[in-house]
Formats: sequence, C-alpha cells, structure tokens
Amino acid sequence: MTTDDKKHAGDSILEKPVSRRDLLRLAGVGGAGLLLGASGVGAIFGAKGSTALGAAKPSSEDQIDFYGKHQAGITTPPQDFLMFASFDLTTNSIDDVRKLFKSWTEASAAMAKGVMIGEVNDNPNLPPTDTGEAAGLNPSKTTITFGVGPSFFDARFGLASKRPAVLADLPAFGGDELREEWCGGDIGVQVSANDMQIAFHAIRNLARIARGKAVLRWTQEGFQRTGGADSAGATPRNLMGFKDGTGNPDTKDEAVMNEVVWAQSGDGTPWMAGGSYMIVRRIRIRVEVWDRSTLGDQEATFGRHRDSGAPIGSKKEFDPVDLSRKDGKGKPLIPVNSHVALARGNGSVKILRRSYSYSSGMDNRTGQFDAGLLFICYNRDTRKQFIPMQQKLGQMDALNEYIVHNGSAVFACFPGVREGGYIGDTLL
Amino acid sequence: MTTDDKKHAGDSILEKPVSRRDLLRLAGVGGAGLLLGASGVGAIFGAKGSTALGAAKPSSEDQIDFYGKHQAGITTPPQDFLMFASFDLTTNSIDDVRKLFKSWTEASAAMAKGVMIGEVNDNPNLPPTDTGEAAGLNPSKTTITFGVGPSFFDARFGLASKRPAVLADLPAFGGDELREEWCGGDIGVQVSANDMQIAFHAIRNLARIARGKAVLRWTQEGFQRTGGADSAGATPRNLMGFKDGTGNPDTKDEAVMNEVVWAQSGDGTPWMAGGSYMIVRRIRIRVEVWDRSTLGDQEATFGRHRDSGAPIGSKKEFDPVDLSRKDGKGKPLIPVNSHVALARGNGSVKILRRSYSYSSGMDNRTGQFDAGLLFICYNRDTRKQFIPMQQKLGQMDALNEYIVHNGSAVFACFPGVREGGYIGDTLL
Repeated sequence: MTTDDKKHAGDSILEKPVSRRDLLRLAGVGGAGLLLGASGVGAIFGAKGSTALGAAKPSSEDQIDFYGKHQAGITTPPQDFLMFASFDLTTNSIDDVRKLFKSWTEASAAMAKGVMIGEVNDNPNLPPTDTGEAAGLNPSKTTITFGVGPSFFDARFGLASKRPAVLADLPAFGGDELREEWCGGDIGVQVSANDMQIAFHAIRNLARIARGKAVLRWTQEGFQRTGGADSAGATPRNLMGFKDGTGNPDTKDEAVMNEVVWAQSGDGTPWMAGGSYMIVRRIRIRVEVWDRSTLGDQEATFGRHRDSGAPIGSKKEFDPVDLSRKDGKGKPLIPVNSHVALARGNGSVKILRRSYSYSSGMDNRTGQFDAGLLFICYNRDTRKQFIPMQQKLGQMDALNEYIVHNGSAVFACFPGVREGGYIGDTLL
Repeated sequence: MTTDDKKHAGDSILEKPVSRRDLLRLAGVGGAGLLLGASGVGAIFGAKGSTALGAAKPSSEDQIDFYGKHQAGITTPPQDFLMFASFDLTTNSIDDVRKLFKSWTEASAAMAKGVMIGEVNDNPNLPPTDTGEAAGLNPSKTTITFGVGPSFFDARFGLASKRPAVLADLPAFGGDELREEWCGGDIGVQVSANDMQIAFHAIRNLARIARGKAVLRWTQEGFQRTGGADSAGATPRNLMGFKDGTGNPDTKDEAVMNEVVWAQSGDGTPWMAGGSYMIVRRIRIRVEVWDRSTLGDQEATFGRHRDSGAPIGSKKEFDPVDLSRKDGKGKPLIPVNSHVALARGNGSVKILRRSYSYSSGMDNRTGQFDAGLLFICYNRDTRKQFIPMQQKLGQMDALNEYIVHNGSAVFACFPGVREGGYIGDTLL
C-alpha cells in the first residue's frame, strides 16, 4: 500500500463512527477515559486528507531484535542515549500486571522495529495508538529492558516466595545522600537508542499504555558523546573528562558473561535463568569543585591519566592495572584510594557497567549544574559483586570528594522474551 | 608534533613548578581560588606519563566559523542538540564584563573549532584549562550565540541609554504561568551542536570561565530527532507528534533574513546592526492530556494533518495555508482558532523559529512528564513580530489547552564578531 493509497483509504473512513473493535482496541491501549478528550472533533469532521502516520521503513542495520534468549540492552554495545524510568504499580491484581506486560511486549517489539505502536489508526474520533514523534525515523538500535524491584514481591501479588535472594534493597553506603524522588520502584525500564527523541517516545508510550495499572515514579535522561570519537569504538569520556568503561568485561565472551552477568539456572531462582540484576545509581558530580582541582589531583583520584586513560605510570588505556608498582619513594604509583584501585581490587570481582552522563538543568538551591552519571550496571549476584565493590568505594574512594549518590534502585531483569511470550512470563 | 612527541614533552615537565605565566593564564581562566583544590597532588608527583589532552583534528565539514558578519547559530540550520544558559552578572564593573566577553570569545572560537580551550596544560599542579569531556570529538557544528537581556542595561554598567527600544521585558500573555526559575537573565547563551556532550561542555566551560564575574541563572537542554529522518532535511516533529518549523522563512534568502531576522543600521540601535533579538519560551506540553485527545482534535488544534504536515484539506506539507477554504457546511477547513491559523494570520508577520524539544525528568508534584518545547525564535523587531503574534496565540490558540508557558526571556544578540574583536564590542 503506497502512501497515496493510504491517504485515500484515510479519506474514505473519515466519517466512520467508533466501532466496537476500535473501542476494544482502545481499552487495550489506554483503558477507559481515553474518549474524554474528544470534544471539538466536530470542527474538522468535514476535513479531507486526514491520514494515520506511516510506519518507517525498518532498516535491519539499525534494528536490534526485542525477542531473544536474553533481553537486549544489557550486553548490547551502549547506544548514544538513554531514557530510564521507574514505575509503581497502582493495581493490586496480578492479572492486570500480566495484561500490562503483554501490552508492553507488543509495543516494545514494534518500537524496536521502528514501526508505529498498534494498528494504523486513522479514525479521527479516536486518539492515535502511537504518539507519533518517532514517525519516519529509523529504529536507531532501540532496546527496551525490563526489570522488577524488591517491592514487586511484597504482599500485593502473592509473589513473595518467588523473590530472588539476590534482589534486596541495597545497604546504606558511605557517601550516600539518597533522595526519595530518585529511588526505588516496582518496575524499572531502561530504553537505549541512538536518538533521544526515540528514547523519550518509548518511555512516554509505555507510560501511556500503563494508564490505570502503573504510574511513573521517576525518570532520568542520559547521553554519551556522539560527535565522532577519535576512533570508532573508543571508550567515551564521562563529565569529569576521563574515559569511563575501560575496565568492562568483554561482552562478546559468552563464558565471561555467564560468569559475570547472566543469572544461571542453578543460582536458586529458576525463573531468572538468562536474566540479570540491574543496579541504578544517580551520581551527581560536583563539577564546579572538580574543575578547580589540579590535573594531578584529578589523575590521582581516578588512578588513570586523563588524556590516554592509561593507569598511572603506564602509556596506553588498556595497559594492565598493576597496583604493586611503586614510585621512587616507595609509594604506589596508583594511589590505594584511587577509584581504579578500589574498583579493581584483586581483579576477581567484575560487573558490567552501562552508564550514561546526565545534565538535568541547574540545581536551584545552589546555582550549580545538576549533572553527573546515571550509573547502571548488571551483575549475576549483587551480593557478591556490586555490593562489596561499592562498600569499598563508599568508604575510601578519593572520588567521593567530588560525587554524591542521590538516587538508587535495583531490579531483577527478566530473561529474554520468546516470540509469542511476554515480559516476565517465566515468573507470572 | 605527534601524540608520542607530546607525551614525551609531557614527561619532561612533570616536575615543573607553577610559573608566573601559568598563574597569569590561570587568573585569566578562572580567577583566584583555582589553586584551592591542589591538596593531594603529592600522591602522584613521581608518576610518569601524565599528558595533556590532545586536541581533536578539526574537520572542516563539521566546523562552523565562530567569527563572521552575523553570529552563527541564528540562521544556521538547526543542529541536533541544544544547551541554553542564562547568566546573571555578579560584578558591577563594565571592565570585568569586557574581560569576560573577551575570555568567552577566545573559548568559543576554540570550541567551534573542536580544539581544547587554552594552551595545552600538562602541568599537574594546575587545573586543566579545559574540562576535557569533549576531547577527541569533532567540532560537531558547534555554534555559540550570545545575547544580553533588558537587565544588562540597568544602572550597574552605565549602559541604560544604549538599550535598544526593541529590547524590553515581554508583556504578560494569556496562558502564561511563568516561574522565576526559568525566566530572564543578564546574558543568554545558546549552544547548538550535533553532540549533547559537546553542548554541555560548552556551557560548563563558559560558566567556569565566568567565575567571579557571572553565575548561572537557569539552563535547559534540548534535542531533536537524529535517527535518520525519512528524507534528509525533513521537518522534525515536536513531542506532540506534529512537524514543527514548516512555516519558517527561507534562511538562505538574504533579503528575507534582512527583513525578518537581522537588525539594520537604520533601526535606531547602530551597535545592533547585523544582530538579532532572541525570544526564549519554556513551553511545557501536557503530554498526558494531549495523548488522550483524538486524532481529529489534534489535527484541528494544529490546523495541519499529523502524518503529512499538510494544512487541513491539503495533501502536502508545503502546500499553502489557505484560511479562506470552507467545508461543505461553510465552516473554515482550517479552524480559526488553530495554531497555524493564528500564527500565520495574514502572512505578513514572520519570525525565525529555532526550537528544541526537551525532556527534564518527571514533575514530582504531579507524576507527569516535564517535557515540551524550548521555543526559541529570532526577529528584527519583537514589538512588531513576536509580541503581536503571541498575543493572538495566548488569547485564542486551541493549543493552550495542552501547553503552559512557564519560562520566558529575551536577549539582544550582538552582531557577529570579527577576528581580533570580541563578543559585544560594538556596544562595549
């Protein structure tokens, strides 16, 4: 069907009343109440040429399958933009949760393909099934990754016995200054894409579909550089000017991913096999203070050189971090309280980091930038990986002078969805 | 000088003390107090290999000259990202203002080229002259556009007699719900670039350079779609799903730009000849309400079809807006209170719009998206162009049901800077 054909089809149904099928579909999308906004339609009842938004032609190159063994967006090489959202359920019915997850599955699969959500809707008497701002754009490697927080397993849905032992609220860490507005949530959704408008579109439409079942609890946008790095695949820099992510394990090494990232069937929670545990920390950087510290201070804080990203005393970014090397006076070349020394430890504990920088305007209380890092990581067992690592960092990390953790959440990210299945179907 | 050469040069000066020249340069960059963060440097005094960040190789294709007859960023085709900042001066000395504008000129010219601000600084005892997060990225078509607000001409600097009659605080418009946190400012800076990290980097470094002379008043990030539009140069969609900017005048038509955008020498303010007046409005979209309205409602509100962007009753985006056409019942095809009908009027009044969508997390008071449009426009005479247009829109625009203007500012954007000159030198 060409665009012109569609337009003519659109013309012919302009006076079509709302059908029972339309209403059922509508109920599936947004629940009752969607028709409340219909006043004023009469004004263009006679208009010709109203058409639904055409679907973009999906480009397979820019498309990442929503369905698969694992959820996309975990070991997927980080796209340029992030929109993270935490939702709270407003229903107490597990059946409603299933319905929501089914609707979200359908919508997410469409968005990953870069096509409009729902059937083409060119009936002027109905709200569009897709909000439209991503129309005509290619899929931009959109991934949508779903997880559930500890509160999902409280008394409401009868799932307490299914809660993974791994999934518990984090302990308090040194340096935490958590604010409720950026903490927790029944459901966490990470949308990554190479287009900010598409990432926003995804969370907005998921929130819309959730109407009557769940509401937004908090959201955070994120970005990384897009402007042509010095070489393709170069490690991006964080807002402190340092390369971030150098120490990440190799996502192409399946054995390593099974060890570090993916929950295994023998881990005690069979429904999580192939899933992963996500930790989200909103870390504000005191950029004004950082910018007044010396280059030497900054490099001692990270334990790396700013330009090259190399460990202090080495030349290249991926040179090994050797904490035993000493300077002429017998002091460790890489300070023991530097970020890399503490995060690395003896090298046995790894996590998969997938963080984005954020800039959220100005903090009106101080006149300073509200900017920093939305730290996101995935691990197989938070108790053995993220928590001990962060306990060391919270106590000693030289970075703490310059950063504040003001948001925190954990989610059990389901295994991948098989076509015909839905998000969370191994649990629900 | 190759990268390796630079590294060796870096090695050889690691133990170099802070020189008088360094101190002078430092004072020029950030004023006194920059050395306060120097504690802890000793930890890596013996380290070898500390190097300054290398400058990116500028790509002329991605580079827009900072210097020129007009400021860049006005008729420049909109880049993908925006970081807007409003500053308030904290000095009462016009000499300080000149110094600030000179420092900003130098830094802005460097950033437009994609090179690091200041001389290469590899002295570990000094703060870096550039915060570093844009290192290695290409210029990404960065433009930095400066203007001054009405308050710049109050009693502080003795410039009251130089205030353009065009530059006055806007009158109250119907539908305004302005909040002080997003209003006004002595100085407005619009940074546009094809990379969000670069846009942030620019405002951050300008704020850093302003230390002791000016502070941030408010900031706002913005974006438009990047994900491969259906055709190059296609009009982007706003967060209401409609194409935004269709009615803009042709920026390549110099005669039209002289009529609509550029202040002329005969306009009564000689120092503004070749400059333009910028209006910034932070317009929140009530996306949740919009998304419950019908397609017919939405199209009647804009006066355009959503898919094609065509005026109602027409087929193509750039078909003329003919307000005289009637439907079968004698009603205007394009509703008289639609956005396009009111903004277009009789077609004689034009402005140059350069808006960006924004998403600033969630409004904690309501649980709704704080998302919308950072409306930016340029005109030659705000009294004859923007104000009458917005008065009509504020009174009648069908869009008002779905939007709230909560921020507002106006700035006189200087003419372009000649090499060797500085921002605002025609005034100061």
